[in-house]
Amino acid sequence: MVELENGGVVSAQGFLADGVFAGIKRSGRDKRDLGILFSENPCVVAGTFSQNSILSPSVVISRDCVNSGKAVHGLVVESGSANCAVGEQGFIDARQTVTLAAAELGVEPTQLLIATTGLIGVELPMQLITEHIPNIKPSREGGLDFARAMLTTDTRTKQYATQIQLKSGAKIKLGGVAKGSGMVHPNMATMLAFMTTDAAVEAQFLQNALSDAVKLTFNQIDIDGDQSTNDMVLLFANGAAGNNKITEQSDDASQLRVALLAVCEKLAIAIVRDAEGGQNRLLEVQIVGAASDTDARKVALEVASSLLVKTAVYGHDPNWGRIMMAVGKSQVALREDQLQIFINGIQIVEHGCSVPFNAQSVVGSLAGETVILSVNLAVGNGKGRAWGGEITEEYVVFNSAYTT
Amino acid sequence: MVELENGGVVSAQGFLADGVFAGIKRSGRDKRDLGILFSENPCVVAGTFSQNSILSPSVVISRDCVNSGKAVHGLVVESGSANCAVGEQGFIDARQTVTLAAAELGVEPTQLLIATTGLIGVELPMQLITEHIPNIKPSREGGLDFARAMLTTDTRTKQYATQIQLKSGAKIKLGGVAKGSGMVHPNMATMLAFMTTDAAVEAQFLQNALSDAVKLTFNQIDIDGDQSTNDMVLLFANGAAGNNKITEQSDDASQLRVALLAVCEKLAIAIVRDAEGGQNRLLEVQIVGAASDTDARKVALEVASSLLVKTAVYGHDPNWGRIMMAVGKSQVALREDQLQIFINGIQIVEHGCSVPFNAQSVVGSLAGETVILSVNLAVGNGKGRAWGGEITEEYVVFNSAYTT
Repeated sequence: MVELENGGVVSAQGFLADGVFAGIKRSGRDKRDLGILFSENPCVVAGTFSQNSILSPSVVISRDCVNSGKAVHGLVVESGSANCAVGEQGFIDARQTVTLAAAELGVEPTQLLIATTGLIGVELPMQLITEHIPNIKPSREGGLDFARAMLTTDTRTKQYATQIQLKSGAKIKLGGVAKGSGMVHPNMATMLAFMTTDAAVEAQFLQNALSDAVKLTFNQIDIDGDQSTNDMVLLFANGAAGNNKITEQSDDASQLRVALLAVCEKLAIAIVRDAEGGQNRLLEVQIVGAASDTDARKVALEVASSLLVKTAVYGHDPNWGRIMMAVGKSQVALREDQLQIFINGIQIVEHGCSVPFNAQSVVGSLAGETVILSVNLAVGNGKGRAWGGEITEEYVVFNSAYTT
Repeated sequence: MVELENGGVVSAQGFLADGVFAGIKRSGRDKRDLGILFSENPCVVAGTFSQNSILSPSVVISRDCVNSGKAVHGLVVESGSANCAVGEQGFIDARQTVTLAAAELGVEPTQLLIATTGLIGVELPMQLITEHIPNIKPSREGGLDFARAMLTTDTRTKQYATQIQLKSGAKIKLGGVAKGSGMVHPNMATMLAFMTTDAAVEAQFLQNALSDAVKLTFNQIDIDGDQSTNDMVLLFANGAAGNNKITEQSDDASQLRVALLAVCEKLAIAIVRDAEGGQNRLLEVQIVGAASDTDARKVALEVASSLLVKTAVYGHDPNWGRIMMAVGKSQVALREDQLQIFINGIQIVEHGCSVPFNAQSVVGSLAGETVILSVNLAVGNGKGRAWGGEITEEYVVFNSAYTT
């Protein structure tokens, strides 16, 4: 597996992208708010979507499109309005947006998905969208503009790509782009990620591989515990690499899974590092010794999501009692009298009790860009990880600001 | 039902209390850190306890005592150390503490419960406890000192009592005391509440009535989403009022339930109003139109726990999209196209979409001491409430401070 320098959503063969500034977000340097990802070859597409009971019509339309099993050519992305909680108009506007884009691209409206992110309760500005869609010219060079077109309060783009040589011979590329938390009008953490591969992949295997990778990556990150109405992860496969179609039974299947997991993990962690109000610091929680991997992931996410753990990490405070609390809160099986906790590799708990540790060396290590909390539950072989952002005063100030 | 002025844990006949300063917490005006609640009559006791997998030995001992079904005489409370994550020593110290107190009171050690609250991972200071337990002199006047002895970073005591005349004739009193969030060394929200009644109550009914009341009150509050290892709610009934013993089938049963619910709700709300870093403001979430009461309570707690809703309330921001998000996050049945949202009685959402509301009047109403968010899910008759505190910059600063 080779990391591709400046790789992203157009690294895989046959994928084109672009993003323009339509005036939906407030203007600024390099600002983009409307973009298209396009493959001339029809693609198999897999997706995972927000579980919120209130969903953006954009999510519903894209989910229905994935579920239909039909080949697609790409995606329109808009940032500024979530197109959520706007009634039936949300469906009308989303369909109109893909219809306009499809006409420009020479494909059917049903062959394009749509993702929108921004303030809830604000309709899509259809006049701006209608005016600016013709200006979007997807190309091999447009990956960065596309990445910008999906950002809201993110401070930077998040892109990654990798290349693998399949056992069966062909070289394939897999890359992606993601956005994290916040909006021009501050709002909730809306998470979007789009990935592309030029591998030929059988549809059901593509979905299984994506669902499994999302479970281990995007579903294991937490910024503020709130779940967006617009979250969406999509993976497009257009077959341009000319490989034998990869199925669950292929020799190549495990390689694709490993590469997909790597791309998902890179993008998920990039989202956490760019958390609203954060200082680019990352909390990684590693759980071992759980009764199952499922238990381990549950505990890891509980610890990474704990407000008291996050504030302690922010304060460089080795407050291990809070880690104990958060571990126990998950209510999974554990042996308290065998429990071990490490902060950045320094053991601070043994047999469920504090060990004499050099507080200053732990405090010092907490000042780094990554804080690794490792916990051994001592009941089995299950393991899992999760990633969390800090909660800072800036987060509170930022999110208490008026929308009005 | 008559509210008793300055009522609390010694309002009910036959209950005595006291609290002293043993030097466990840092000293300060009116500081107390070791207390006893005592009834000369043996009591029936009911309790609910933290569901955390990591439990303080104090919780385990008190829970076993409640489960044994044996009559008890009261409780020792200590603040400063949670007596949690200290290994077997936690059991030894807790048992020694009740043994010392029981000797002073002339009862058996198995007839006293224990509750401790403070920093996790710190052993009980047995020398201080041994020295100061003899100074505790429970009396009718000691309710306030006892209330102080259970506080940590709370800014005030939380007491309430009520009197009811039973249908069967006797007058009974029911009162209680609670503590909320934080510690001298900042740590997690450890919630304790102790209630007393002079009614004679059958043990199983007492437990059922308490569990039901806790479900609607203490289990519906949220300050920061974290669950303590030391939470405990106890209700002692000593029968000093001379009433006919109340059972599930008694005419008096519903009256006792109503009074108990009132006391629990008063204490639970008092905890939320005194949230760490908060400004004494209360967020009350009222859900109607749910498929069931259980669904309604789930949604209410989800909204009251949402960090983005809490920061919006703190910022006086009528950001109703976040309320929509938090409602949907609970994944219960709802009709989005019929959903209604009100902020302090002002309707802001109808048919799941924004209605034209006067933003300034909503913002103005958000400045009050209580913010009521009402949501109609429009699928049934289920209703429920929950209460949340604000999240402020002070909360983050406070909880990012060093324990070291």
